[in-house]
Amino acid sequence: MHSWLDGLPADAVNLQSRGLAYGDGLFETIAVRAGRPSLLEYHLERLALGCQRLAISVDHGLVCDELCRYASALGDGVLKLILVRGDSQRGYAPAAGAAPRRILQGSPLPFYPARNAEQGILLFPCTTRLAEQPLLAGLKHLNRLEQVLARSEWQDPEHAEGLMRDTSGRVIEGVYSNLFLVSDGQLLTADLSRCGVAGVMRAALIAQAGAAGIPVRIADLSLQDLEQADEVFVCNSVYGVWPVRAFDSLNWSPGPLTRKLQAIARTLLDT
Amino acid sequence: MHSWLDGLPADAVNLQSRGLAYGDGLFETIAVRAGRPSLLEYHLERLALGCQRLAISVDHGLVCDELCRYASALGDGVLKLILVRGDSQRGYAPAAGAAPRRILQGSPLPFYPARNAEQGILLFPCTTRLAEQPLLAGLKHLNRLEQVLARSEWQDPEHAEGLMRDTSGRVIEGVYSNLFLVSDGQLLTADLSRCGVAGVMRAALIAQAGAAGIPVRIADLSLQDLEQADEVFVCNSVYGVWPVRAFDSLNWSPGPLTRKLQAIARTLLDT
Repeated sequence: MHSWLDGLPADAVNLQSRGLAYGDGLFETIAVRAGRPSLLEYHLERLALGCQRLAISVDHGLVCDELCRYASALGDGVLKLILVRGDSQRGYAPAAGAAPRRILQGSPLPFYPARNAEQGILLFPCTTRLAEQPLLAGLKHLNRLEQVLARSEWQDPEHAEGLMRDTSGRVIEGVYSNLFLVSDGQLLTADLSRCGVAGVMRAALIAQAGAAGIPVRIADLSLQDLEQADEVFVCNSVYGVWPVRAFDSLNWSPGPLTRKLQAIARTLLDT
Repeated sequence: MHSWLDGLPADAVNLQSRGLAYGDGLFETIAVRAGRPSLLEYHLERLALGCQRLAISVDHGLVCDELCRYASALGDGVLKLILVRGDSQRGYAPAAGAAPRRILQGSPLPFYPARNAEQGILLFPCTTRLAEQPLLAGLKHLNRLEQVLARSEWQDPEHAEGLMRDTSGRVIEGVYSNLFLVSDGQLLTADLSRCGVAGVMRAALIAQAGAAGIPVRIADLSLQDLEQADEVFVCNSVYGVWPVRAFDSLNWSPGPLTRKLQAIARTLLDT
């Protein structure tokens, strides 16, 4: 489907865009089923938080309206929203009051091998570390060179994801996903106050697990926590939940809590 | 002057650009006098290092040729080169062999008050800290949200620059410049192996100072080093050297070494 820029079909963005110059903006990658954006409230909430932290002033009603109209036309697929801070003169200083630019891009739902969800995936041990920057932590902003470097560490299609740690060695997330461990019946996921992207599926699973009486703990995670985990899975807003079956010399089987959360994610994406 | 994309006049870049999506690229800001790019060798060297570290494969002869042709047409002004990794499918993984896109933009030489160079500038104390990421340190890459946040901390035109520290508190650089201290006749500038942009004027001044017999030390700098400095100045490849006359409660007068380096910078920019 043709992309939109500020609500109109477009192929290109001006060369002065602050998105191109500085990565000065945010994005959301949204699964769309039968014309409806999945997990829309969560996406809008993260976007609003990002706008607040980067001081980007946007008409959220307009963004929501455009998202829904685009999704409706897309039908089934993946919708990417890029929100770029409004144009300014040359230089880092933002222009007061410049309206942000809204880019919408649609693509078909990606193909993933069925075994990813059924038997689980291999997790590549990335050596690229995430820098600790509390001011940007959690946001899905456009400064993504760390992910580009991490993803370029492996070419073999056997690894469906890579594990990223921070510069202090903490276990944080996948390149495209968030990570959950299951230990003694409890769900564990990384504290993302120093780095990492706070995925909307992560947020939805935390909420749903809480509602289902499954204890969830957000904590600093070490490699030892990973080694001692009974189950491991990754999640994102497009594919839901994939069990992790191996990382380095460690092996896991998809366990009962992983299957439960996988079912919850499927329901979240289908409704 | 009209911008160029891949050697041809252009106003826009495609919405799939990895520059927009991830900030996946590098840039150089080059002073141009009488059609000649200043400090060209230094700019090309830093660009080559950036390409090597980000694994962006580019025809450097072509880039150099385009830069020189554009500068020749520009006459006097500032030339900005943005080098974006070649287009790929959706997702972080770079496409093997995709040629990078070359963007050239020209603008007039900016106006700076004469007192900046003569009496010196005020340095704003930014609270935005630089994250420590050795993989990207030193490069002038397109992930610049930290600089955007730092620059938005002050609006008054009295402060011509802001001082940035890293998350461990070390004194690193200005938002648009590198910082030098003079202590006991020695030049000091920050080690940029964890964060910061290794400016071409910084590199040129280090080389020229060495050749002139002025001792230079690259080191971790603390606020205490700044407090104890006899002279302080900032530099970049457009304006050369500006003395710093105040930061917080600290005050300095432009000293002899600052004036010497300022003259060297002027010569470097004029030839």
